[in-house]
Amino acid sequence: MQELFTVLPPAEAFATLARACSPMPGVETVPLDAALGRVLASDVRAAETLPGFPRATMDGYALRAADSAGASEQSPAYLRVTGDVHTGVVPEVRVGAGEAVRIHTGAMLPQGADAVIMVEQTNLHAATAARPAEVEVLAAAAGGENVLAIGEDVRTGAIAVPAGRRLRPADAGGLAALGIVRVPVRVRPRIAILSTGDEVVATGAQPAPAQVRDVNATTVAAVVTQAGGIPVACGIAPDDSVQLERALRAALAGADAVVLSAGSSVSVRDLTAGVVAQLGAPGVLVHGIAIKPGKPTVLAVCDGKPVVGLPGNPASALVVAWRIVRPLVRLLGGERVDADGLDDERERSAILDVPLPSRPGREDYVPCALARDADGALHATPLFGASNLIFTLVRADGLIAVPLDRSGLDAGERVRVIVP
Amino acid sequence: MQELFTVLPPAEAFATLARACSPMPGVETVPLDAALGRVLASDVRAAETLPGFPRATMDGYALRAADSAGASEQSPAYLRVTGDVHTGVVPEVRVGAGEAVRIHTGAMLPQGADAVIMVEQTNLHAATAARPAEVEVLAAAAGGENVLAIGEDVRTGAIAVPAGRRLRPADAGGLAALGIVRVPVRVRPRIAILSTGDEVVATGAQPAPAQVRDVNATTVAAVVTQAGGIPVACGIAPDDSVQLERALRAALAGADAVVLSAGSSVSVRDLTAGVVAQLGAPGVLVHGIAIKPGKPTVLAVCDGKPVVGLPGNPASALVVAWRIVRPLVRLLGGERVDADGLDDERERSAILDVPLPSRPGREDYVPCALARDADGALHATPLFGASNLIFTLVRADGLIAVPLDRSGLDAGERVRVIVP
Repeated sequence: MQELFTVLPPAEAFATLARACSPMPGVETVPLDAALGRVLASDVRAAETLPGFPRATMDGYALRAADSAGASEQSPAYLRVTGDVHTGVVPEVRVGAGEAVRIHTGAMLPQGADAVIMVEQTNLHAATAARPAEVEVLAAAAGGENVLAIGEDVRTGAIAVPAGRRLRPADAGGLAALGIVRVPVRVRPRIAILSTGDEVVATGAQPAPAQVRDVNATTVAAVVTQAGGIPVACGIAPDDSVQLERALRAALAGADAVVLSAGSSVSVRDLTAGVVAQLGAPGVLVHGIAIKPGKPTVLAVCDGKPVVGLPGNPASALVVAWRIVRPLVRLLGGERVDADGLDDERERSAILDVPLPSRPGREDYVPCALARDADGALHATPLFGASNLIFTLVRADGLIAVPLDRSGLDAGERVRVIVP
Repeated sequence: MQELFTVLPPAEAFATLARACSPMPGVETVPLDAALGRVLASDVRAAETLPGFPRATMDGYALRAADSAGASEQSPAYLRVTGDVHTGVVPEVRVGAGEAVRIHTGAMLPQGADAVIMVEQTNLHAATAARPAEVEVLAAAAGGENVLAIGEDVRTGAIAVPAGRRLRPADAGGLAALGIVRVPVRVRPRIAILSTGDEVVATGAQPAPAQVRDVNATTVAAVVTQAGGIPVACGIAPDDSVQLERALRAALAGADAVVLSAGSSVSVRDLTAGVVAQLGAPGVLVHGIAIKPGKPTVLAVCDGKPVVGLPGNPASALVVAWRIVRPLVRLLGGERVDADGLDDERERSAILDVPLPSRPGREDYVPCALARDADGALHATPLFGASNLIFTLVRADGLIAVPLDRSGLDAGERVRVIVP
């Protein structure tokens, strides 16, 4: 079996994989209240204009702005109060010259009016036997003041929410405003998760001496779920090329992609890469990524379906799952993903507390604690010690990303921290 | 009805509410693969030590470190190769003085050995008729080198994952490593969501002239879901104290907290505050928050259950939902929440591109676009225009937080951006 260990930088490795695969085409329709976090399948255009009527944005008086021109506390304008407009009803009253109508926030502006003067800038003189109610206007209202004009929020035909958007609370609100209660979203990509290793037993099993439980199936499934995919558990295959190939073919048949955690010994890695190479064209694209931990990673596409071979070490597997599998799942799910796979959503910026040594030519991920100082600035402190342990990651608040081209980071400099 | 409009800073407002309510005590057990994002109900202690046996972390030769003392390329040590250890099996071979055993990453270290020398630092001389196989060791191995010692990951009795942790992929992995397939988690708080307003109709309805659709029920439910709560839809109550009180009592009875979006006119706000004040002790705690948008917010606790009255304007409601409802739901769900309610999880740090005016004494949230420059630094550009519109938030990537004590922010300074 031929070893093709061409180590690529993580950005290039992801880009190579991304170029060889495509988003899943499937679309399904879900109720609006289940659409949060789903990826919008097509542009949603507004079928109506919002607001559909001019609305008061303050409590006060609807008036003609011209009638308040030059008004001030020293020289108020006086307007006849001819009615009252409540929310939810079409005003029956019309505002004529020299007139004002009491209006509530959210109510429809009556015809004739073109502005609302805030109640705080008025004094009301109640009606008496001698004269009708009158409002003293203590400031000039500009035309349109305190009024939300027709179409100021969205106009018929405009793109209200764009395709590819992973829906956030505000997006769901925009759809609600337009009355869209059924939402076309991308199907979630199904990601088969297969573990390998003669020493690996299921999470629920009691390991014999020299055996360990399968950690990667759980962590990778969690990363897939966070990224919007559906993890499909495929169990554990032994380090045997015939059985591994059978398990991989079954996994590929039942999913849109396969994530394999593939042991860390060179012989097992070679075995895995060899099996993957036979599954379909174009086969193995990347064998080795300049990332620590996580170098012995295999990226492949077999008959259009991506296959990611993660290192067996749980910390390495988790780092590569974040750096490569997460953007892959988002890409398959129809989200716009940067070519380098970098993901802003779970990234923080912090000040590094101590110098952090590193080797150039490699993207390092170093577990750290995060804490705010008295001024609210976020500080990252590396957790030294064995970074390849699962419980180091459990104790960590995040992972400091050391860029490829840096030979270490300096105390006091601003660093990117991945917060899974 | 008495107006008690004591405007508090958001941090103080949240702290006041938080002091008056407690986390939900309920606990349920879920399968490990459904535990992501749930809050761990009690400390999980390791029932076993991991690793339970010394493991090789590299491919190479298990040996006695002392046998390689002083070895170098110029002056190699020569050791007899007496066997081969595979992963998953207890080695039958024992390493004696002057001996080495071939070992694979992840395999159990054979008795007698105390280190592993990487295969890259060796040359193997195969067995001949004249002599057994021999390995040339080109470097000195330190005791424990390339070996994961028993208990290096976690020891029996240690807290493996702490109570109150919202489980991340790494935490799920830690539980998997320990064989914990059923996880005790806090019950999710049930948050009743009630909209009010004579002008408001259900999202699925066609508004008559002067009416608008209920946006807040959707956005608030989404924020509650993101924060780990279960939204309970309670519909729309009219602006009438008798019907509002009835609807609120029903909502409170069926949930752990109520979030009400309460119209924005002064009269409706007073009506809401008046009704809330009668629901139970201690009643209204905060009436008005120094936040823009979102000032007309009511915070109350009625017979132990929090009640949040949001402004009716969708953008205001969403900002207060992020600033107050989100940490409240997390607190009720048993997470550790800072006293000020500030939440690092959905916060970014960015460089402000242009000056941003603001009024001191008020926490401002300004919609912005986010973009990376060529060096990867994140920049925030405020989206000027009507910030009180739902579609401004749909277009925005995040909200710049202007601190309470600042009169505007300067171009080039680093700002906090809430990314919902």
